[in-house]
Parts: sequence; structure tokens; C-alpha cells
Amino acid sequence: MPAFALKDIADALDARLSGDGAFKVERLVHPMDATSPHDLILAFDTKLHAFLENTPAKAAVLGEGQEEMGKRFAGVLFVSRPRAAMAKLTSLFAIPSSEKKGVHPSAVIDPSAKIGKNVSIGPLCYVGPRTIIGEGTRLATQVSVGADVKIGSDCSLYSGVRVAERVEIGDRVIVQFNAVIGADGFSFVTPEPGSAETLKEKHSGKVETFNTHILRIHSLGAVILSDDVEVGACSTIDRGTVTHTRIGRNTKIDNQVQIGHNASIGENCLICGNVGVAGSAQIGNRVVLAAGSGVADHVKIGDDAVLMSASQLGGNLPSKGVYLGAPAQPRERAEEQFFHIARLKVLRKRLESLEEKVNLLERQEKKG
Amino acid sequence: MPAFALKDIADALDARLSGDGAFKVERLVHPMDATSPHDLILAFDTKLHAFLENTPAKAAVLGEGQEEMGKRFAGVLFVSRPRAAMAKLTSLFAIPSSEKKGVHPSAVIDPSAKIGKNVSIGPLCYVGPRTIIGEGTRLATQVSVGADVKIGSDCSLYSGVRVAERVEIGDRVIVQFNAVIGADGFSFVTPEPGSAETLKEKHSGKVETFNTHILRIHSLGAVILSDDVEVGACSTIDRGTVTHTRIGRNTKIDNQVQIGHNASIGENCLICGNVGVAGSAQIGNRVVLAAGSGVADHVKIGDDAVLMSASQLGGNLPSKGVYLGAPAQPRERAEEQFFHIARLKVLRKRLESLEEKVNLLERQEKKG
Amino acid sequence: MPAFALKDIADALDARLSGDGAFKVERLVHPMDATSPHDLILAFDTKLHAFLENTPAKAAVLGEGQEEMGKRFAGVLFVSRPRAAMAKLTSLFAIPSSEKKGVHPSAVIDPSAKIGKNVSIGPLCYVGPRTIIGEGTRLATQVSVGADVKIGSDCSLYSGVRVAERVEIGDRVIVQFNAVIGADGFSFVTPEPGSAETLKEKHSGKVETFNTHILRIHSLGAVILSDDVEVGACSTIDRGTVTHTRIGRNTKIDNQVQIGHNASIGENCLICGNVGVAGSAQIGNRVVLAAGSGVADHVKIGDDAVLMSASQLGGNLPSKGVYLGAPAQPRERAEEQFFHIARLKVLRKRLESLEEKVNLLERQEKKG
Repeated sequence: MPAFALKDIADALDARLSGDGAFKVERLVHPMDATSPHDLILAFDTKLHAFLENTPAKAAVLGEGQEEMGKRFAGVLFVSRPRAAMAKLTSLFAIPSSEKKGVHPSAVIDPSAKIGKNVSIGPLCYVGPRTIIGEGTRLATQVSVGADVKIGSDCSLYSGVRVAERVEIGDRVIVQFNAVIGADGFSFVTPEPGSAETLKEKHSGKVETFNTHILRIHSLGAVILSDDVEVGACSTIDRGTVTHTRIGRNTKIDNQVQIGHNASIGENCLICGNVGVAGSAQIGNRVVLAAGSGVADHVKIGDDAVLMSASQLGGNLPSKGVYLGAPAQPRERAEEQFFHIARLKVLRKRLESLEEKVNLLERQEKKG
Repeated sequence: MPAFALKDIADALDARLSGDGAFKVERLVHPMDATSPHDLILAFDTKLHAFLENTPAKAAVLGEGQEEMGKRFAGVLFVSRPRAAMAKLTSLFAIPSSEKKGVHPSAVIDPSAKIGKNVSIGPLCYVGPRTIIGEGTRLATQVSVGADVKIGSDCSLYSGVRVAERVEIGDRVIVQFNAVIGADGFSFVTPEPGSAETLKEKHSGKVETFNTHILRIHSLGAVILSDDVEVGACSTIDRGTVTHTRIGRNTKIDNQVQIGHNASIGENCLICGNVGVAGSAQIGNRVVLAAGSGVADHVKIGDDAVLMSASQLGGNLPSKGVYLGAPAQPRERAEEQFFHIARLKVLRKRLESLEEKVNLLERQEKKG
Repeated sequence: MPAFALKDIADALDARLSGDGAFKVERLVHPMDATSPHDLILAFDTKLHAFLENTPAKAAVLGEGQEEMGKRFAGVLFVSRPRAAMAKLTSLFAIPSSEKKGVHPSAVIDPSAKIGKNVSIGPLCYVGPRTIIGEGTRLATQVSVGADVKIGSDCSLYSGVRVAERVEIGDRVIVQFNAVIGADGFSFVTPEPGSAETLKEKHSGKVETFNTHILRIHSLGAVILSDDVEVGACSTIDRGTVTHTRIGRNTKIDNQVQIGHNASIGENCLICGNVGVAGSAQIGNRVVLAAGSGVADHVKIGDDAVLMSASQLGGNLPSKGVYLGAPAQPRERAEEQFFHIARLKVLRKRLESLEEKVNLLERQEKKG
């Protein structure tokens, strides 16, 4: 178990230290989980302070202004932006994976593959012909990497990850369990325009052309994951048709996300869980697609835009725009509609009351 | 193939037996699939009775009151609550997995792992250092279980399941194919408040703070699956940040479900297919999340509540409440809105007709 | 690298050749990716023509009518229906997988399995007892096929695919990475009617029956995938309860799709990404379920129907019908409602202005 002096953590975090800087802590814990004096309690949220009354822990990380609560500890780190401090704190206390360097004897590595220095290839992995794996990269267990793949240095591919042939992966990329990089695109065509194709062009409410034959379009392209990308568990990114599907530098993708063939996603994007991005969508930099949202094929999203959770985007989304709803539209417009929908019952009653008044006025008019 | 006397099945089911209790049946079949006299036909639904006219089967399970149809069989079991009878019937006829006890020679087991009695670890599995696997538990094939994991007794982990380091699994837990227990949480932060964070607090329709840097918050916590939990194929449950993600006793999770970091789910819940539960959501006991529904982060759901299918919950859901829609709201209110929306065209016409009348009245008033 | 004469490609595509039919091409590329004279550029979209100005490539495939642009190439293929031409073109240039025929020594094959001629079983695969694998079928790497499975000829199962016991797969079926065929159905029941069951029958807004016990219904049925079916990465198809879950001939299923137990899907359907089909749904032939849509349990969909993207179907969908929205309804009706909702603010203002007018009329009437 690692042990850190509070002073050193304060320096790393740029936090204000109060109390004994030489005091050593071994674990970062939730207030409910503290069991030892050397646990460092994380309690930014004042709702958690009730748990601190009788805690055995002697050190804590608190938000600025929580001075009073800090008094019961031997040492306290005060932090002004808790969420940002979490990044460094959790990095410090992260438990390294227990896998050993080198290639496990049960792994199957094609003799033509080029494996860099300090690579760790765990039990029952497969690496295909001519594939290049960069220095310090880790393949956990039961990973498969197909032929002609290039993987950079210091990547981490968790158990069960599948990397298909010809995929290119940059440096420091993390791919979580059972994710799939480079499945074939879902690309099929009918010899004559079929039902879905016709419905896109003709605004019909009835199907008039039929998918009696379905032909497969093969995927000749690959997937390119740039440096520092992260892909979540069971997420899937399909290969392109003739060009490549691209994920830009430092973009983070959550679990159960589907990215279709030929899609292009910029840098520093956050793609949350259960999102679907259809084929050939073009997404800018620093875009956020919130959980459960969907992006239609060929749609364009500008830089810094946000698609709110569960929203379904059928058209383009301008730079810095915030879109909401199904179908997605500018946030204010969507919320205005929610407001009016919630008041439809009252609107209807007002209309009915007005109808009565007008009827009465009409009768009076006739009489008069 | 097992063979059961109808009398014994009647006892097990608490069903009413009519006819030859000594008659033996070997398979439980749909009316369309019967091929042998010793098939036991399941036909609660009277629409299926047409298939019984010329069936070779000589035994059936029918609903109470279907006396007439029963006459053509050598033996019939009459059941008053068909769906509940299905649990026992299918349990009786379930075909046990064909894997052998013991550790397959191709499996890679760390020497420090502790494997209980009667454990079955199939071909090409991996078990990490210091991991403990309880008596009678089965790892099918190509399963990976990381370091420092605890798995209870009589569990069944299907092929391709990934259990990450430090996860704790109770007794009799079933995890279906390619499910992932303990991927890292999707937890990222910008040094200064970024676009999504600001939009939560400020009700803006335009992005004004930008995600130019993204920092990773590491996941130090684990996942705890209590006794009798079931997790579906390709479902993912992320580990907590500093504390654990928790799934309560006997909760059943379907396929393609995503449970975010730090979430806490109670006992006896039913989480249906394609559901997404975001990080730190707190869900009570006996809650039903119907197919395709989504729960936002930090949201609380009370005991016995039901979130109807495809509904998107952004706020809390009270105990016993039934919520519907996107955004989700109390069922009656959501259905009332659907009702009014469906009549908007008529409402508009009534308004237009009223406008004409009022115009006429105004003209008459002026003239008058 | 294969090389084709333009003349031969023209024949295969039924395309019009202009220029040097003997000219040889080696790769099919996007205009941006051309690096060699022997690249064949694909540029149906005139927006891409800017890239052709200084391209090193000497051959292109263009749409009919793009005669002018074709002049700069040594040879051009003119095509009248570009999307259909893509099927043949990409098939021609598809790069075959690099796996070798035969069974890799690291694969674990039960001695009772029957493996056909020219089968390729890659590293670290598992094949169970009594399973039959047809001629020319390929299991990539780390695939598992359970006991008593039948797989036809010329199938391709990508890395990490799980095929559970007793599943039947036809000829030429493709299953992408980490897909799961034959997990247990999500089928649970309470001894007395529970919350979800009661809410279906009784139109209540509050839960009045509780899921204090949950019993498992076991899945005795299997899954049947007919000839030429394709299943996407991380998709899951559950086994039936007493009968089988069925996918008809030539139906194509995208990534992250969930098909519930007992569902029956016809021929030539297109099931796009992130779709959920609940248990016992019955879907006809040539049906399109667009991305992110959901189909409730026991629902019926007629032949040639289209469920538009993100739509949630709770009732039946007639043959050739086009449904949209959540809840899904006929497309025209849904779009009409979107139209009226977008104008609610104006409607409300018109109502308010009318109320003022009527108030004035009433006052005048009283005075008068």
C-alpha cells in the first residue's frame, strides 16, 4: 500500500494544508468506508459530515470554508474546486493493475508482429500478423488485436477488447472491457431504392418501394483513434467504407456507445453512455453528447455544441448550440414547448369557457 | 433426457392433475414443436388450441377452465396462475450446462487464487491473484476474473464475462455472456467549470464555458453484487469512484443495460433491456425500470416505483410512483398530455372558428 | 494486393467505361486518400470533386453525367445508381481476413464436435460437445460455441462471439465481434401479480401490488438464425422460453441491438443500431427498424413496415405503415403533432388576444 505525507498531497493538489503535514495517509475513502487512522476521508459534500463525528480517520479533504469540521482531524487539505481536485487525488491513489510486464506464455502472438519494450500482453491474448504495439502498452487478458494494426505507446486495452485489422490507435489510449474497435459498418443497399431510402426523399406515410433484395457494402476503411482517447466497456466503433472512421485526440467515450461507419468526431469531446452516432456524422471539437442521445447519419455538429440527454438529433447543430428533445431543437424552444404542453389542459378549458361566452354573445346579438 | 411422472409435476407445481398421473413426460414444448407422445405441451393461451387438434403429444399443461380441451390428452395439469407455474415448470425441464467440474487445463489460474470445492472453470478462463471463488461456482469459457475479487458459492458466469479487480459477488449470482462488472467510471472533469457543468447550473441556451482540458477521475471503488443478482448479456456496471457501486439482493438486470459509477440499486428490482442508469443514482427496493428507460445522475427513486418504457427520468421519483414520458412525469399527467397533444389539430380549428365569430361580433358591435 | 483492369470492373458493375479499359487499379479510395496512379477514386458526390484537381490517381468511378470531371483520368467508370454499385465495388476490393484454414493448436475443440472441410478455427476458440460446424465456416479468435450447436457453411464468426448451446445458424451467416446469440431470456415472474403486470392491466398511476418475490423462468428454447443473416457487434439475441427466437433469412442486424426471448423476425429486415425488440414481438418481412427505436413485447409488425428512428412502438404496426414518435403513431399524424406543438406559443397568444376581445365585447354588451 502506498503512503503519502499530507504535505506532499497538498503540493500535488495545490491545496491549502491545515495541521500536521507529515501525517501519512494510505487510502482515499468515502466517509462511510473509513476504518483506519491513516485513511484520507473525502467529504466535500456537507451532507456527508454526519459520518465524520466518530470516524477513526485522522485526515480529510474538505472544501474551502469547512474550517469548523476540519478541527477534529490531525491534518486537513482544503480545496477550492473539489471536482478538479478529484482528478489528481484519484490519480495518486489509483491502484496499478497487477499484470506483469512481458508476454504471457498462453498468449498467441504472430511471429511477424512487432512488440515494443516494456509491453505487457496478458494471458490468452491474440496479436495478428504485422501488427505493431508501442512501448509500455498493456493488453490485459483475452484481448484480440487483428492483422496490420498499429497501437502507440502506453495504451491500456482491458480484457476482452477487440481491435480489428488495420485499425490505428495513438498513444495513451484506454479501451475498456469488451469494447470493439473496427467491426464492419452497417451498410446495405437495395438494387433499386428501397423503403427507408425512398421515405427519406419522399415525405410519404406509406411504404411504396420494397426491400426485396439487400446487398452488402463491404467496409474497406479502418478506424483511427487519436492520442489520449478513451473508449468505454461494450462500446463499438465501426470501420469506414472506403475512408476511415476517426476519433479525435483526447475524446472520451462512455460505455455502450455506438459510432457508425465513416463518422468523424473531433477532439476533447465527451460522448456519454448509450449514445448512438450514425454513419458519416461529422462532429466538431469539445462537443458533449449527453447520455442516451442519438445523432442521425450525415448530420453535422459544430464545435462546443451540447446535445442534451436522450435528445435525438436529425439535422445539424450549430457551434456552441445547446439542443434538447426528440426531435432535438434549441434548448429554449424545447423547454418552451414542454411548458406549453404541460398547460394544454388549462388552455383547452380557457378555450371552452371562451366558446361559451361567445355563444352567449351571439345569442344576445341575435336577440338584440 | 429426464423423465417425470405427471403426478410428480402436479405436486411440484401445486397443479390440479386430471387423467393418468403415472404417465411420463420428457420435454416441455410449445404446441407447434410437439413431436412425441412424451412431450408435455404448454398451452395456456387458447389461441394455441388449434395446434392441439392433431398433436402427437399425450400430456399438456392448461389453464383452469380449459377442461374441454384437456379431454384429448392422457393426462393434463390444470394451473390457476400460468406465469407463476412457468417458473417451476421451466426449472424442472432446464437442461444443465454440459461443462465438467474442475479446472480445464487451458485455463490460467494465478497460484495465489483460492478455488472452492466443486468449482467448474472452463476452457481458456483467467483468474487473477488472490481472488477467491466459492464452492460450486461455474465459470463457463473465456471468462476473466481480475485480482482480489471475491465470488460466492453457486454462481454462474457465462462465457466472455469480465469481472474487474476487487469486485465482490455474492452467492447464486448469474452473469450472462460478455457482461462487464467493474469497468472504470466515466468520470472526467475540466479544470474550470466546462460546458455541461455550467449548463446544469445556468439555464442557458448557448455554451459559454469550454472543455479545453479534460482530466480523468480514476475509479478507486469496486462493484458489489449481492446474492441472487442476475446481470444480462453485454450489460456493464461501472466501479465507484471512492466508494462502491452496489446492486441489491435478488435484483435482475436484463441485456445491454448500463449502470454508472457510484449508483446504488436496491433489492428485488427489475431493470429491463437497454436501460441506462447514470452515475450516483440511488434506486430503492422493488423498483421496475422498463425497457429503454433512462435515469439521470444523482436522481433518487423510491421503493416500488415504476419508470415506464422509454421514459427519461431527470428528477426524483417518489415511492410507489409510476412515471412516464420524456421528460418523465406522473403517468396520469403524461397520458393527459398525450391526449391533449393528439387533439391539438381540433383545438386549433376551434380557436380559428371562434376567432371568426368574434371578428363578426366585433364588426356587428361597431355597426350597431 | 489484387489488381483489376478497368474493363473487368466495368463488366462486373454493369458500368459504362470511358478511356483505357486495360488500365489496372489496385485500391478503391476516397478522393482524400489517393496516393498512387493505380488508386481507383470513388467520387459520386460532386462536393468531392475539389479533391480531384491534383490527384495522383489515374482512374475514377463517377456518377452518370459527370462527364466533364472524368476527362482528367486515364479511365473512368460511369455508374447510374451509385449506392448499388458500392456493393459490387467494395466486394471486389474487400481484403480477405488473414486467418489460416484449419484448427489453431490453442483452440479447445470437444472431441465429439464435427468440424467440416475447410473450416478455420482461430486461436483460443472453444467448440463444445456434439456441435456441428459446416464447410468453409470461419471462427476468428476467442470465439465460443457451446454444446449441441449447428452452424452451416461459409459463416463468419468474428472474435469474441458467443454462441450458446443448442443455437442453430444457417449458411453464410456473419456475426460481428462480441455479439451474443442465445443468452437466457429476461423472464421473471412474481407468485402473485406484481407491479409491472398489474399496471399493464389496470390503468393506475400508483403501484398497488409489490414484487416481494421474484421467480426465474428458465429458457429452454434456442435461437435460430436463418441463412445470410448478419448480426452486429455487441448485439444480443436471447433464447426462447419453450420455443425458439427466430431471425429470418437475409435479415441484417446492426450493433448494440437487443432482441428479446421468443421474438420472431421475418426475412430481409434491417434492424439498425441500438434498437430494442422486447420478448415475443412478431415482426414481418422487409421491415425496417431505424436506429434507436424500440418495440414492446408481444407487438406485431406487418410486412414492409418502417419504424422511424428513436420511435417507441407500444401497439401493432400495420403492413407498409410508417410510424414515428414516442409513443409511435402513423408518420403523418406524428408530424402534424410536431407542427402543432411548435406553434403552441402562438396559439396561446391568439387565445389570449381573443379573451381580451371577448371581455371587451361582454363589457360593451352589458353597457349596451
